[in-house]
This record gives sequence, C-alpha cells and structure tokens, in this order.
Amino acid sequence: MKITHNNNQLNIADVGSEVSLRGWVSKSRRMGGLIFIDLRDQYGITQLTIDHQSHSYEKAMSLRQEFVVYITGIVVERKSKNLSLRTGEIEVQIDEIEIINSSENPPIQVIDITDSLESTRLKYRYLDLRRLEQKKFIIMRSKISQAIRKALLSKDFHELETPILGKSTPEGARDFLIPSRIYENQFYALPQSPQIFKQLYMIAGFEKYFQFARCFRDEDLRADRQLEFTQIDIEASFVTQEDIIELIEMIMVSSFEEVLKMKIQSPFSKITYEDAIKIYGTDKPDTRFDLLIEEFDKSYKDSNSPLFSLEKQAYIIVDKLLSRKDLEHLAQIHKTHGGNILTYVKKSVSGFSGPLTKHLEEEQLLTLLRKKEQTLLLSTGNFNQVFEPLGAVRSKLGKILEIVDKNKFNFLWVTDFPLFEYSQEDDRLYARHHPFTSPQNEKEMIEEPLKAKSKAYDLVLNGYEIGGGSIRIFKEEVQQKMFEMLNLNPSEISSKFGFFTEALRYGTPPHGGIALGLDRLVMLMTETENIKDVIAFPKTQSARDLMMDSPNEVEKIQLKELGIKVKK
Amino acid sequence: MKITHNNNQLNIADVGSEVSLRGWVSKSRRMGGLIFIDLRDQYGITQLTIDHQSHSYEKAMSLRQEFVVYITGIVVERKSKNLSLRTGEIEVQIDEIEIINSSENPPIQVIDITDSLESTRLKYRYLDLRRLEQKKFIIMRSKISQAIRKALLSKDFHELETPILGKSTPEGARDFLIPSRIYENQFYALPQSPQIFKQLYMIAGFEKYFQFARCFRDEDLRADRQLEFTQIDIEASFVTQEDIIELIEMIMVSSFEEVLKMKIQSPFSKITYEDAIKIYGTDKPDTRFDLLIEEFDKSYKDSNSPLFSLEKQAYIIVDKLLSRKDLEHLAQIHKTHGGNILTYVKKSVSGFSGPLTKHLEEEQLLTLLRKKEQTLLLSTGNFNQVFEPLGAVRSKLGKILEIVDKNKFNFLWVTDFPLFEYSQEDDRLYARHHPFTSPQNEKEMIEEPLKAKSKAYDLVLNGYEIGGGSIRIFKEEVQQKMFEMLNLNPSEISSKFGFFTEALRYGTPPHGGIALGLDRLVMLMTETENIKDVIAFPKTQSARDLMMDSPNEVEKIQLKELGIKVKK
Repeated sequence: MKITHNNNQLNIADVGSEVSLRGWVSKSRRMGGLIFIDLRDQYGITQLTIDHQSHSYEKAMSLRQEFVVYITGIVVERKSKNLSLRTGEIEVQIDEIEIINSSENPPIQVIDITDSLESTRLKYRYLDLRRLEQKKFIIMRSKISQAIRKALLSKDFHELETPILGKSTPEGARDFLIPSRIYENQFYALPQSPQIFKQLYMIAGFEKYFQFARCFRDEDLRADRQLEFTQIDIEASFVTQEDIIELIEMIMVSSFEEVLKMKIQSPFSKITYEDAIKIYGTDKPDTRFDLLIEEFDKSYKDSNSPLFSLEKQAYIIVDKLLSRKDLEHLAQIHKTHGGNILTYVKKSVSGFSGPLTKHLEEEQLLTLLRKKEQTLLLSTGNFNQVFEPLGAVRSKLGKILEIVDKNKFNFLWVTDFPLFEYSQEDDRLYARHHPFTSPQNEKEMIEEPLKAKSKAYDLVLNGYEIGGGSIRIFKEEVQQKMFEMLNLNPSEISSKFGFFTEALRYGTPPHGGIALGLDRLVMLMTETENIKDVIAFPKTQSARDLMMDSPNEVEKIQLKELGIKVKK
Repeated sequence: MKITHNNNQLNIADVGSEVSLRGWVSKSRRMGGLIFIDLRDQYGITQLTIDHQSHSYEKAMSLRQEFVVYITGIVVERKSKNLSLRTGEIEVQIDEIEIINSSENPPIQVIDITDSLESTRLKYRYLDLRRLEQKKFIIMRSKISQAIRKALLSKDFHELETPILGKSTPEGARDFLIPSRIYENQFYALPQSPQIFKQLYMIAGFEKYFQFARCFRDEDLRADRQLEFTQIDIEASFVTQEDIIELIEMIMVSSFEEVLKMKIQSPFSKITYEDAIKIYGTDKPDTRFDLLIEEFDKSYKDSNSPLFSLEKQAYIIVDKLLSRKDLEHLAQIHKTHGGNILTYVKKSVSGFSGPLTKHLEEEQLLTLLRKKEQTLLLSTGNFNQVFEPLGAVRSKLGKILEIVDKNKFNFLWVTDFPLFEYSQEDDRLYARHHPFTSPQNEKEMIEEPLKAKSKAYDLVLNGYEIGGGSIRIFKEEVQQKMFEMLNLNPSEISSKFGFFTEALRYGTPPHGGIALGLDRLVMLMTETENIKDVIAFPKTQSARDLMMDSPNEVEKIQLKELGIKVKK
C-alpha cells in the first residue's frame, strides 16, 4: 500500500503517470455518469474521477465523507482547471479503490471555512484539525519552533529540561497544586515558569540554556490566555541586556526569514517604559500606526477652565471628523480604562465645534489644529487617568480609522521598567517584573523604590507583548534586600526561597535572559486572532477540555490514597 | 569583559598570546612565591599562574574556591605538562584579575570524583552540576536529544505538543491529580504518556508526529525510575511494524554516529517474546553474553526422579566450576524470582559431583557436559517457576563470570507479545502493553485471549527496555471489544474513553508508533548506572526534591480556593 505522491504534489508534468494516493474523502459528487472525489491528506487535495463504466464504480459510489481510501489511477489534464489548488491542473482517473476505513457522518464539516460553533469544533477537535486551514496553524507552529531552535543551537545554547513537579511559591499568579500520595498534607506545584531552575542552571555553570517550557497559571482565562502555555525560555551567563536583545533579534530575523520568507528589519526600535506610556498610553505599543499622544503645553494652563486645573492633560489629533457615535464609543472606552474626562474639538470648513471650544481660545485651537478637517480628543485628570485611557482610545482609533497596516511586523523593545509597583489595597510593593530582576541601581532600590528602575525589557510585536526578560540579581545580599522590600519576613524568605538565596552564595555568575511566548508569537506569525487556533488541544475560556471532558470527578479510592477530601 | 577563549581551548599553538578568560576558581595553591589556579568553566579547565612580584598578586591571594573571576594574561608553555587535560601543555600567566563574585566555602567539593553523600549532592545540586564529570551527562543528554530530533525531522516528522493538564483514566499506573479551582470536586490529571493525544493527532490527519514528552507516574520509585520522565514519543499513520522498526534503527544508528562517533550495526536482531523467555528467561535479554537457557530433552523424563515429574526443566551450563558461595547466591536469586528448585552438577577432572548426580545417569551427564570443567544449573517446576528465575540466574552469572562486554551496544527487538495478562488476584485480563494495542488476530483476541498475540514490539539495549510500541487498534468495534475484554462495562467505557471510541468512528487511519525512554537511553549511552546522573534536577527515591524541599505544605488559602481538605 505504498503511495507514489501526496495530495499536494501532482501537476501538469505528471499527466499520463500511473499513481497511487491515499487520504480522506473530502467531497464526493456525481455528475452524469461520473463521480468526482476530493481526496485530502495532511498536504493538500487531489481531485479524483471515475466513470460509470469502471469496474470500481460501485465501490466509488459507496464512499462517503471522511472514508479513508487508497487508490491507484492515471493522471490526466483537467478540462476546467482550479488554479487556487496546487494540484488544480490535473485530476486522477481512478483504476482501483481500497477502502481502508469507513466513517460515520461527521458532526462538523471538514471544510476550509467552517461555520460550526467553537464549542462543537473543540469537542470534535480531531475533525476540526483535519481542516487544512486549521491544520496549517499547527504545522506552522512546529516549523516556527524548529526555526527558533536552530537559531539558538547555532549560538551554542543547550536545550535543557526542568522539572514539572515543582514547589509552590505563590508570588503573583495562583499555582496549580498536586497532592503528594506519600507525604501527608504536602503538595507539589506546577511551574508558572522555570525561572528559578534556569537561574540554577546558570549557578551550576551551564552558560547558555534554552527550553520550550510548559508553564501553568491557575488564573481566570482571557481571550488570549490558556491555563498552560509554552514559552521559549532562554538564559545566559556573563551577559548584558544588549547581548540578549541582539540574540533575540537574530532569532526573530532568522525565523521570519526561514518560515515566512520575510525580511525583518533589525535592530528593532527601542523605547523606555516611561516614553511608551506617555506617547502610546501603553507599555506594549502597536507602532504600525502613528496617532501619538501629546501632552498639553503648560502655557494652556493659564486658561481659567477647570479642565486645566487637573494634574495632567494630553490629547490625540485625528485627521478626520469623527462621528458622534464614534466619539461616544471612544468616551466609553476611555472611561472603562479608568479615564476621568474625555472631551473634544472638531475643526471643519465651517470652523470649530465641540465642547472643548468653550475652554480654549481660537488662537490656541488654530495652533493645535492646522489641517482642514481634524478632531482633537483631550483627556484630563491625574497621570493614570490620562495616559493609559488615551492609549485605549488610540488603539480603538487605529481600528475605526483602518490605519493599521496588517502587512507589517513591528517589533519594539520596551526598556527601563519601574522595579516596583505599589498596591494601595495591600499597602506594599510588588515586583513589576519578578523578584529576581536586577535593579539598575541598588541604592535607589532601597531609598527611592518607586523611582527605581529595573534591568527588565519586554519585546512587543504589533501591540502584543511577546517576550519579557531581565538581567537578574546575582548577589545574595541584593536578593535578600529585594525580598525584604517585597514585605517577606525572614522566615518566609527562608521557607520559600531559602534554597535559592543560599545558592547565590557560592559564586553565582552575572546572568540574564528572556522568555518568549510561543503561542502568541505563532498567533501573530500565522495572522490569526484566536490563540486557540495555534494550540492543537486547547482548553475553553472556562478552563475545560471539551473533547475529553476534563476536569472530571475521579474515583474515591484515588482521593483516599492522596489523603484529601473535597467539599460536598 | 569579553573573553578570547573558553577554558578548554588554549594549547601549545597559543603560546605568547594575550588572552582573557573567565570562570570559577576550581583550585588554588601556593608554591613558593607562586600561586597556581585551576580556572573552570562549562568547557574545561585552564591552569593560571601568578608570581608574587605581580601587581595582582594580592588579589590572587584573596581568591578562594568557587569565586567567579575574569582574568587577562599571557599563554606560556608548562614545564610539567598534564596530558590528561586538553589545555595541559600550557598555562596562563595572570596580568589582571577582576573578581566578579565571591563564594562562601562550598558544602561539597566541586571535583571530578566526589565522595559526598548522594543526599548532599542532591541538596546542593547546583554545585554538584558544576563538576565537569556530572555536567557531561547533562550536556550529552542535550546532544543526544538533538541528534534524535534531527533524524526525525529528516523524515518529515512534525514535533507537536500535547496538554499536560489532562484527564484521569486509571488503567495501569496511578495518576497525579490536580484539583480544579473552578469546578468543585473535579480534577485534571498529569499524563502517564500522551498515548491518546498522539492517536488523536493521527485521527486528525497529522501523519507523522513526535514529541519529547514529559510523562508522570505516581508509583513507588525504583533505582531507575522517577516520578516524571521524558519519552521520545513517536506516531505515524499508514505504517506497519516494519516501518517503525526501520525508522527507529535509522534514528539509533545516526544518533550513535553523531554523538558517540560509533557505528551501530543494523538491522538489529529480533526475537519473539516467547523465545526471549525460553532462551534468556526475560523479555529484555542482555545479548552481550551467551549462557543460553536450554530446555531438558523429554527423554530425560524417563528418569524416576521426582525432579522430572514436574512440568518443566531447563538449565544453563557454565564453563567453570562455580564455588559453593556462588551457588548459594544463585539459588537465592532463583528463589527471589519465584523459582521452585535450583540444583546443579559439576564436572571436573575428578568426575561429576553435586546433588544432580543422583538424578541422572552418567551417560546422560556426559552428553550434557562435554568440556573439561563445567557446572550445570537445573531449574525445575512449572513454566513461571523455571524460565524467569533462570533468567535472573543468567543475569547474575554474567556479572560473576565477568563475561559482559561493556564496550558493546546490543540492540534487540522483542516482538509478538501476548495481548493479555491474566490476574489471578482480580480474576480478569489486563492489557500486556496497553488497551490500544492491536491484536494480531481479532478472532483469537475474543476466543482465545490468553493465546492471542499483539502487534507490540519492544526495543531492548543491553538488557534494558528502552522503547515500547505497537500498531494500534483503528477500528471502533475492535476497540470496544478490547475494552470489554478488559472487564470495563459500557458505562465505564463511555465515561473514561467515550470521546476516544467516538473519534475512531470518523475515518481513523491505520497507525502505530513507539515511545523511547530518553532518560534510560542517555544513561546507557553515557555509560553511567544511575539514572539521576542524566537528570539535572531529579527527585530522590522517596519522591522528594531535596534542593527545593518539595513537596511541602502550602498556605491554607490555597487549599480553600481549591475546595479541598487534607487529613489531619
């Protein structure tokens, strides 16, 4: 039952050849005394035909969708060519048919563009994955992974494994726990990332590590999040931020080249966190379009308007007259993102209009709005009420105005992140990145923590954070101090991280790294908007596997062996 | 702080060059006015020297073990060369020293041959891994993995991921469970292998899959087992047993060639399960030495001795006179492995001796023992009391007689396994391999299950099972029947495997595969006997991570969120 070709290979040059193919019956239709069959495999589709005079005609009549068949036949030129198909110039006249397996009528159609409900597609994921459009995402994922691996291996990185049965150290997201059968009342935890292990690899003198690491976070799911995800985890010793940035740029350039045959410009642009917030209203700017945020010149503050008595004013100017509906929508978004007041002025041939006209002199308006038709959106309030809400408005404007160039891949490094965040609720500091990130200045970390910057850097692509990394703390006393700044008392430090602070004592090299989100990167590289498309067997947003029906109840004996009880 | 060389590069050709190196102080000793330092990195060791007249002498005096340093200096030829070291012909005269990090006195010595307790080594694993002897295992693991991956990619296999948060389907080993926070009284489970997912990939029309898959079994640990392990998981559609065997032989030949520069003979030998048991007393024979088991000729049964009234007799002949101590030891092993009676006869220049002389005629003895000095060990009892116990005796004899050729890598395929095993205790059948393995004959599976053979095959290397695979069931009705044979009632089949039997209905291609145990393969290829050596961060035999001290108790709030209680 050996085949001569896959279903994406035959073309006009093969006309006259005797071939054998196999695959799934994708479509079958009768026209007069002929049957046409689309035969599908992982690679593509070949059209088969059979005449009612053939000795195999009856067998061909019995074929239904998704039957698995093996056929032999002769390649002939098609009369009506289908140039959207790679095999569209030919068809195969069937000689013999062997039915390898039959199929019941499938609950979803295995066709390129599906209109089945997502829940049905996930329940029958194995059929959904037969759609070549869907399969393409998974094959691309595999190709992108290999391209990235190849780039890392070319720089002498070693692919090294880390345990999945780890230890719970809740700082940040919730851990998944695994009860130990042997030790009563004790638990392993699934890793949120191999952060500590990769640092231990550096301490152990492995100088260049990477891993396609599965990570787990028991958080409520958002559209682009899964309970488990894969990150390309990278760490190296004796490196600076610039070394890591250069490495990642090389990886991205070579992967885009290899997989998408696309030249990506490097070095990538860089922006500080502070500038990103002030100019784009977000720490993951989509730079495929402009619409920059500008701060109001202080001189306008002379105005008596209460609008300008607030701490900050900033605005975006659009070269278009926005409709009332758009303006209402934008005001809503501004508010949802914590904004205070969003107001506007429009300039048209008939002059200025809109609520802001009352607060500014015409002269001021003329300096701001120099083109014929423009709208200025002004946000006012304190820092947090102005910039991030305007960032959300900017993002929406990109869509409304259709000014996002979908063919662009705009990479951007965001650097100089704050070291800490202050939580009013808990009245304490949290690490902005994670507690192992090196401060830029150790004195500042202690004395002016909220001003202190870290050696962290994020990689942003088209408005998505696809990677985050940092140079790490490599001196024990700094790490201790960091934990103290995060309100951990000595006994907590010791029980949670004692082994790690001890490890830092024995000649830890300077080191740093990054983790790239594979799922998100593949999503962007394959130009889909649903992260589930690039994961073969995803969970739903309500954390279920609809195909396997998991999680589920287990047998009593299993819980008994683990010494745990569940709430009734 | 860029370096010119790593610590395994410099040789006599570099004499006179100015170089910069970095690494860990492995040893430091003073001789007269000189200090000698061994500088270590991931690659090797370079000897440094410094004279008391140097301006850096004082700094060199302050260096202690495991300090991290950066140095510059001049390469000179050594007076007393150390040819066991790749850099042993030269040393570097230090000019400048920069201390990058200091170290406390390490709790274990970072030297090639360690005499520290295993528990101390595991607690300070990051120091243990600094030993180049230990590091070598992990680096080799990474190289072996890449060689295998390269071979699979060359055959158009796709590396595809499967979920870690799966479903508990207890058949065989115990599952690790993960409580769901969202669904009360429900659990995910860690996969014992991606078996079902890889079959679903085939059903989904991915024709060639592989993955370096993490697998989990909550079983009591043996010396060569871990709670989590890595298998090279392989599956393909439209394949026969021969196709998989050919593929794996290609992978092994190319990996041994690439990593060990060693030519492995292929095709590998094959033996049926039945012959393996009868000839070697085990389904994983070590064929690096002979000592075959032979069944007693039926004609001896004429003897009146009660020894021969039992069902089976078989023996091993050794070309040596075994000592009483050895014989006692072997009898013990025979018994431990479920043997009934082990007896012997020795032939020496002074004639025959030993208990068996009473049961056999001299003529019979002379036909059996033809050499000058021999010992014959005879086991008698039923089938299970004879062959496997003799297999254990054979294995021990290999060691006692020192006839195992340690330089050999003897691969062997074991085929034609029984489909089922019968458990007296539970009075039911169990799948010998797993419930997805295809029978050789479906009728036999139903009518004579204990005679039925499966399309399963194991790969054995030097007496270790390093892989197991099979051609799978691909027809729903056969899979249903298989579950019934395993005593699952319709509601169990439906709740545990319903989604899978349903999947089989929609045009499943014939498929099969194998899983290779990476840990064990690396252990054999690196010629160590401890599986922990080839795992960077292993657990102990009592299932603990001594470094992180995991598992451990978690915070009450975590359990509360998960809705579980632990026994007090």
